[in-house]
Amino acid sequence: MSGNLFGSVFRITTWGESHGPALGVVIDGCPSGLKISEKDIQKELNRRKPGQSNITTSRKEDDKLEILSGIFEGHTTGTPISLIIKNKDHASKDYSELADKYRPSHADYTYDVKYGFRDHRGGGRASARETAGRVAAGAIAKKFLKTSAKVEILAYVKQIREIRSDVKLEKLKASQIESNAVRCPDAKAAKKMIALIEKMKKTGDSVGGIIECVIRNVPAGLGSPVFNKLDARLGQAMLSIPATKGFEIGSGFDAILMTGSQHNDPLLKKGRKVVTKSNNAGGVVGGISNGMDIVFRVAFKPTATIFKSQKTLTKGGKATKLKMSGRHDPCVLPRAVPIVEAMAALVLTDEHLIQKTVKI
Amino acid sequence: MSGNLFGSVFRITTWGESHGPALGVVIDGCPSGLKISEKDIQKELNRRKPGQSNITTSRKEDDKLEILSGIFEGHTTGTPISLIIKNKDHASKDYSELADKYRPSHADYTYDVKYGFRDHRGGGRASARETAGRVAAGAIAKKFLKTSAKVEILAYVKQIREIRSDVKLEKLKASQIESNAVRCPDAKAAKKMIALIEKMKKTGDSVGGIIECVIRNVPAGLGSPVFNKLDARLGQAMLSIPATKGFEIGSGFDAILMTGSQHNDPLLKKGRKVVTKSNNAGGVVGGISNGMDIVFRVAFKPTATIFKSQKTLTKGGKATKLKMSGRHDPCVLPRAVPIVEAMAALVLTDEHLIQKTVKI
Amino acid sequence: MSGNLFGSVFRITTWGESHGPALGVVIDGCPSGLKISEKDIQKELNRRKPGQSNITTSRKEDDKLEILSGIFEGHTTGTPISLIIKNKDHASKDYSELADKYRPSHADYTYDVKYGFRDHRGGGRASARETAGRVAAGAIAKKFLKTSAKVEILAYVKQIREIRSDVKLEKLKASQIESNAVRCPDAKAAKKMIALIEKMKKTGDSVGGIIECVIRNVPAGLGSPVFNKLDARLGQAMLSIPATKGFEIGSGFDAILMTGSQHNDPLLKKGRKVVTKSNNAGGVVGGISNGMDIVFRVAFKPTATIFKSQKTLTKGGKATKLKMSGRHDPCVLPRAVPIVEAMAALVLTDEHLIQKTVKI
Amino acid sequence: MSGNLFGSVFRITTWGESHGPALGVVIDGCPSGLKISEKDIQKELNRRKPGQSNITTSRKEDDKLEILSGIFEGHTTGTPISLIIKNKDHASKDYSELADKYRPSHADYTYDVKYGFRDHRGGGRASARETAGRVAAGAIAKKFLKTSAKVEILAYVKQIREIRSDVKLEKLKASQIESNAVRCPDAKAAKKMIALIEKMKKTGDSVGGIIECVIRNVPAGLGSPVFNKLDARLGQAMLSIPATKGFEIGSGFDAILMTGSQHNDPLLKKGRKVVTKSNNAGGVVGGISNGMDIVFRVAFKPTATIFKSQKTLTKGGKATKLKMSGRHDPCVLPRAVPIVEAMAALVLTDEHLIQKTVKI
Repeated sequence: MSGNLFGSVFRITTWGESHGPALGVVIDGCPSGLKISEKDIQKELNRRKPGQSNITTSRKEDDKLEILSGIFEGHTTGTPISLIIKNKDHASKDYSELADKYRPSHADYTYDVKYGFRDHRGGGRASARETAGRVAAGAIAKKFLKTSAKVEILAYVKQIREIRSDVKLEKLKASQIESNAVRCPDAKAAKKMIALIEKMKKTGDSVGGIIECVIRNVPAGLGSPVFNKLDARLGQAMLSIPATKGFEIGSGFDAILMTGSQHNDPLLKKGRKVVTKSNNAGGVVGGISNGMDIVFRVAFKPTATIFKSQKTLTKGGKATKLKMSGRHDPCVLPRAVPIVEAMAALVLTDEHLIQKTVKI
Repeated sequence: MSGNLFGSVFRITTWGESHGPALGVVIDGCPSGLKISEKDIQKELNRRKPGQSNITTSRKEDDKLEILSGIFEGHTTGTPISLIIKNKDHASKDYSELADKYRPSHADYTYDVKYGFRDHRGGGRASARETAGRVAAGAIAKKFLKTSAKVEILAYVKQIREIRSDVKLEKLKASQIESNAVRCPDAKAAKKMIALIEKMKKTGDSVGGIIECVIRNVPAGLGSPVFNKLDARLGQAMLSIPATKGFEIGSGFDAILMTGSQHNDPLLKKGRKVVTKSNNAGGVVGGISNGMDIVFRVAFKPTATIFKSQKTLTKGGKATKLKMSGRHDPCVLPRAVPIVEAMAALVLTDEHLIQKTVKI
Repeated sequence: MSGNLFGSVFRITTWGESHGPALGVVIDGCPSGLKISEKDIQKELNRRKPGQSNITTSRKEDDKLEILSGIFEGHTTGTPISLIIKNKDHASKDYSELADKYRPSHADYTYDVKYGFRDHRGGGRASARETAGRVAAGAIAKKFLKTSAKVEILAYVKQIREIRSDVKLEKLKASQIESNAVRCPDAKAAKKMIALIEKMKKTGDSVGGIIECVIRNVPAGLGSPVFNKLDARLGQAMLSIPATKGFEIGSGFDAILMTGSQHNDPLLKKGRKVVTKSNNAGGVVGGISNGMDIVFRVAFKPTATIFKSQKTLTKGGKATKLKMSGRHDPCVLPRAVPIVEAMAALVLTDEHLIQKTVKI
Repeated sequence: MSGNLFGSVFRITTWGESHGPALGVVIDGCPSGLKISEKDIQKELNRRKPGQSNITTSRKEDDKLEILSGIFEGHTTGTPISLIIKNKDHASKDYSELADKYRPSHADYTYDVKYGFRDHRGGGRASARETAGRVAAGAIAKKFLKTSAKVEILAYVKQIREIRSDVKLEKLKASQIESNAVRCPDAKAAKKMIALIEKMKKTGDSVGGIIECVIRNVPAGLGSPVFNKLDARLGQAMLSIPATKGFEIGSGFDAILMTGSQHNDPLLKKGRKVVTKSNNAGGVVGGISNGMDIVFRVAFKPTATIFKSQKTLTKGGKATKLKMSGRHDPCVLPRAVPIVEAMAALVLTDEHLIQKTVKI
């Protein structure tokens, strides 16, 4: 309904505005007995937090996690897990201009129409800061998947503007992704990407790109038929991340250039495991995982916050100009990598639990 | 949960297998007082039904609608609307081969893993025949949107394999789309597409392509923040349609080649209406409609059912070959057009009703 | 939301009006592999159908079940099960008076206010005939519970007006309940109850009473904390049955006359099983089953349909009198017994499936 | 599913254990534009908090509310409202005995079976302390109902053990309820009740009773048919409150002693309003409000925590004795009054918002 809830069995509700006292997430439906520590969660939050490098925003937020419920003696109890992150860097700025002028390609105007009233400070609820709650919840989902099925989720920056990386998915490791500020495991491409982002930062402009995600050791049989197909749920999850414009799985938009006989993935046996020769499906057939790696890509637009003068309207509907100042990411992708992983983990955890109810 | 339910307020549950006695849909949460007739619904079903032209399957199904509840004296009563379509053409074939051999890139193997047991006749629940229920429900949603907000939803075949059409969205009319068998309003491109599909049919192969959808007169303010962003919900809806591999909205994957200053859509006034100069957003900003046309595209893979010999496995895990026979669409797109429209209508109707609860 | 959906994992949606062409239910989330036949379901429908005896309505409805989907070769497939019952006895009567006059203590006025428009024939959606769908779905739930956990659910008529039965719950058998028309296993009391109901029938009046339900072999651990406590869900389930006015579990309203030291149920071991010495809890502690028998009672008001002249209003708000004619139950309890069992089965099946997701 | 979520449109999720760092509630779906202050909420929390009088527990908890999100410049923004209450009085006690011995008629054993693991300190999640979150959310719901429809909800203690009060519902005022420690507006009965509770406190025993609730100015048309009947939802809401054993509406269990002609409520006009002569329905007909006062009663068992020696089992299944010490309410009803009101407010607010979506 109101859109702040995600999931069926493993459900999360995020709350909080970028400039309120705190933001957080309540995780409801996490199985009992999962070993989890503050450190497991903080580690993922640190990958998302601002100020990590000179190609991200220089805003200072520690994004320090507090666990308020649901974990006892280092294990989940099956009751709601409440996680909270206090906002630190929020009182410093004058937001009066943003109270009156709509930022182009931000949610200012649409929120005003929807609710008739809005916390305008820093984007309020529409701020990407909201995703901190998702990443915290996703850290628990990742731990659950790793513990119960050795599932591994790796996302990385595949492309920034026209700079494409060359990455072998089979050999991709988490350490490679974390080895540079742009989270692209192809060192050459990463260097170019960083240079491009730095250039954009200087000119007050921004760029977008593509994040690719691979999920390994997915048990076959996850995903629900018809409307909650695993790829459909992953699609919704990814398109719910701010600044996304597209999603594709497996062959994706390139599928349209193949014939059926080229695109179909023949089934065969590899030891005891049923596999497919090719993986145009991207690991999901008929909405249900087939045990192959799940592979998908997400398109991110260039950051809407730029520091050039833009034409826009005031709240009252008068034409005006707006030139923003402050600290913002000229490219959201490096910090979006853990968000993509978190959302994928939330979907898979939910379907993993749903699958337990499917057979008598 | 189980995936057969779609929507929050305007909720539909589809049921039925391709080779059972019937299939249908229950619509729960349709407001009372909507004028609706069997004809309104049958018209949409006819656009989806098999045997429409020589580029679709020659299977014979009348897809004759019966209304069993929820409509009284030509108007909805606010109670569940039960719609049913009897299966006619289902007893004729021998499905024993399909009981034992997994069709590549079909859901045979994944359903078997998921449920341990499966109605193998004609794809069972995974058959695209299931979408008849969606189209029927979508017809009511379309009527609701038209009646309450003059919303118009138009989808068409934009591309088949490498054949791209050239269509001005502003001038697009329903009659143009229905003017040829492939549902592409660009007559020249349509001719080439039809020729290509006919060629595929002859060789027993298949092709895919892109459907584009434009939605006009969308009130600003529809869509829910965070996880149920309007674009995220549309994404899920489209990716739940069989054979889809990708979804993009507005600038989509092309957004990655622009800078922020190129991509941002400046706000301005057009008469009394707030509009944007460009529409890279595709009508949705921060997950909420901004009153501009909603524009999105969906990629469909080539039909998995082909009539060439394919390597696969038996249920028991032995390598085998499968050569299917029968009647199938060499390209699903012409019949998928009303499904795309139906799913879009279901999402918009739901968010339209949700919006009524948002302000005090 | 709209109230026609019940359950979280094992979800049912009932649809249909008493005087439309048919009514039915879609069961979504039933695990695959459950053996079930039309006979299993028809048996329960026969216990609810009209015309069973001279103390129930003499309306003629066969309530003949048709299975349209979700069951293949005698087993559930995990896909939606669509069950349908055609209405036979519906065209015979003139309902014009009921279109204009509100029947006291019926839902005529409240539906008109809620929806602004209503199928007035025979109560439309508010007719108790809707419960046929619940009983059909409940038959599957009962089979599931019996198959997977040997759970047995027995309801019976405990009291009609001031006539109380004397029944030992430990010895209660299904055959005793079915041994007479009023479904009271105490033969003496049953005789008096039947006489009272027959008397009411003659005078055109009606009576109510209490149904008690015992559930055996309930695994400990079912039920969800806080809002979905097992007793709270049973309460909602029972109070959703037409004509109910109250629900109590275990000691119920009598609990208020005890002290804590009298009411607390001491825990002890009986062989390997943890039991309680007394069962004031009624089998549910903190909202979760403790393995003891679940025992609850439901109060039913006297049937609102009576054949005496009553003061009421017309749709236009003018004072008038209404004297109904036709065939109605002077006491709903005998036919409500299978409905109580069905609703209990639906709750327990749902919580049984939910419990599978609770531990890592 | 997991039971910590309540509501469809106006949804709340409570979280927190009695002895964790904090507990709270997230309210999702509250309309924007509602004027609300910390004071509005704190006032209700104060009615529930421990240590109010010498007939309640002497535990010290300020139950000081903090608003963390969703309210900006004194008004709701339509985004999630996060409310938090820090636990103060939680580190003082040694809970090692309760880690090993199951308290009779508490949820210790059932939680252990359900989750296999439990925060045993002070009842953990099963503690009635959880209801603080409900009362906080209920305060917002009450404000919403008052603001948008002048709905007034009043609960009071009607009976403690055998001591019945004599209260005219038509004349009942909030100030009368708050005029004494037991929250019974009949001063004479209140005095006796207080004396009885004090006596129980001295002997280490406990008592239960009945709370009655009346809701005025309810618009006709609220409540959803079939499973979510307004009375069924109120029933679930009340039975989800710890220590409840029964619920009845209007005539309740006494309905069984009347005939239909005595029980039916004749419709008539009072000025422009449709009313009924009697109100045996308790304000709800066919699950939908008819505009009359809603009247229901809830039975509470005597507090399970008593200070006498009780037989029970250890976690390992050995017979043992338990004699609790500490500070507990010998009767939960005085502090349960605001909880009953809160839960009623949550149901009505939800149905009020749902009703906005019902007509075209």
